[in-house]
Amino acid sequence: MAELITVDDADDPRLHDYTGLTDVELRRRREPAEGLFIAEGEKVIRRAMDAGYAMRSMLLSAKWIDTMRDVIDELPAPVYTVAPDLAERVTGYHVHRGALASMQRRPLPAAGDLLKSARRVAIMESVNDHTNIGAIFRSAAALGMDAVLLSPDCADPLYRRSVKVSMGAVFSVPYARLDGWPGGLEPVRAAGFTLLALTPDERAATLDEVAPHRMERVALMLGAEGGGLSRRALAAADDRVRIPMAHGVDSLNVGAAAAVAFYAVATGRPTA
Amino acid sequence: MAELITVDDADDPRLHDYTGLTDVELRRRREPAEGLFIAEGEKVIRRAMDAGYAMRSMLLSAKWIDTMRDVIDELPAPVYTVAPDLAERVTGYHVHRGALASMQRRPLPAAGDLLKSARRVAIMESVNDHTNIGAIFRSAAALGMDAVLLSPDCADPLYRRSVKVSMGAVFSVPYARLDGWPGGLEPVRAAGFTLLALTPDERAATLDEVAPHRMERVALMLGAEGGGLSRRALAAADDRVRIPMAHGVDSLNVGAAAAVAFYAVATGRPTA
Repeated sequence: MAELITVDDADDPRLHDYTGLTDVELRRRREPAEGLFIAEGEKVIRRAMDAGYAMRSMLLSAKWIDTMRDVIDELPAPVYTVAPDLAERVTGYHVHRGALASMQRRPLPAAGDLLKSARRVAIMESVNDHTNIGAIFRSAAALGMDAVLLSPDCADPLYRRSVKVSMGAVFSVPYARLDGWPGGLEPVRAAGFTLLALTPDERAATLDEVAPHRMERVALMLGAEGGGLSRRALAAADDRVRIPMAHGVDSLNVGAAAAVAFYAVATGRPTA
Repeated sequence: MAELITVDDADDPRLHDYTGLTDVELRRRREPAEGLFIAEGEKVIRRAMDAGYAMRSMLLSAKWIDTMRDVIDELPAPVYTVAPDLAERVTGYHVHRGALASMQRRPLPAAGDLLKSARRVAIMESVNDHTNIGAIFRSAAALGMDAVLLSPDCADPLYRRSVKVSMGAVFSVPYARLDGWPGGLEPVRAAGFTLLALTPDERAATLDEVAPHRMERVALMLGAEGGGLSRRALAAADDRVRIPMAHGVDSLNVGAAAAVAFYAVATGRPTA
């Protein structure tokens, strides 16, 4: 059973995992270096635990103790109860979701290990926006992608905002970082995957024409909002594929495009 | 050719269309009552004009005059040039996109008129979030839906945030408000549409099983983020349809779900 500890000093060193949560640059450096990430809100905390992440500690206001009682009873980690205004002073924002947990990161798997059993993989290039990373993971998990691979410069899927937007899906679909870019794509191809680059370019074949759902192993490559995939990423792909556009619209947003492509690759196999 | 007028008084009544833009409640009442909407940024302003909306006036800082020169030369509406800090005092925010235009609303078409020529229609129930409205319009336009119908309590697609998130797609796909809810659905059915309610409910048939792309006329019903469609909306539908979920994820966000469903209904007809 967890220890319930009331803390009333914002400088208490036991709250260190939770300080300055609104300082994105600071947290982006600190969290991987210190081996932690922050799960926010009851649902996301439970999902992190269900996925087997170890809890370092939990921070909550008194009225959340009952809601989290079973978690508290089960865990060896300390639970810090604080007044709402103290939580705000420590974290830098008003914690509406009531409970925060500091979770222990695990070493990421090697891409090669994920590729052994996967058939449908999403590969993101330079997706730096935490909201977009989270949204893409949520769709990747929901629509049955087996794994996600990240170029070295993608943002951290375990950053608080990504975790929240993904509704915890970053815990349920395995992911890895590629070594080098676009060189890290070679082992993916060597593992038998067809590398499909998603692009709005009208010269590319449509999803319908490429019919990725018939392919044995597919790696779908996505670029960031705005620029899309880089020229060298496009050059490294086996084929380019596009979602047909109507009404003179030039593109979907990256979250919507990813969802449609995942559906076409992994789930969507309507018969004509 | 437009008149170029330098304004240096934040209380100048000619700037009335642009006052208090950050006050959502105020603007939500004022804009429909005064028959205007705000287009923000060069791309969106041009798209509103291409769609045939009349411009009431434009507000921009001096450095945007060259960019908008062809628009200015072509239009009879007054163009107010202001210093950036005056623009901020009038509107309530820092206008990074440099140019704002006040556009004249047009009467909305009747739903019945849109239904005559449409084959794929999206129907939204109680979508109150301007970002979600904009995102859904962008996907509906891009993926080839012919029209959008709104329950009486949906938010305004011409609200500034909706317009911006839609990237102007609210101008390219025609839309109407239904009279009454769910009573307003009856004329849709009477026009020969199959009403499909999108739901995460596992008892519903999958998109693949329902195969809406084979139907002659489809109206796809979407609810708001969180609650989804109401019980009475579900009861009014001809059939319920779901996107199959993997990895134990319970739902997609409404934007991703809409994009996948639009693709399956309007565009996606892969052959097995």
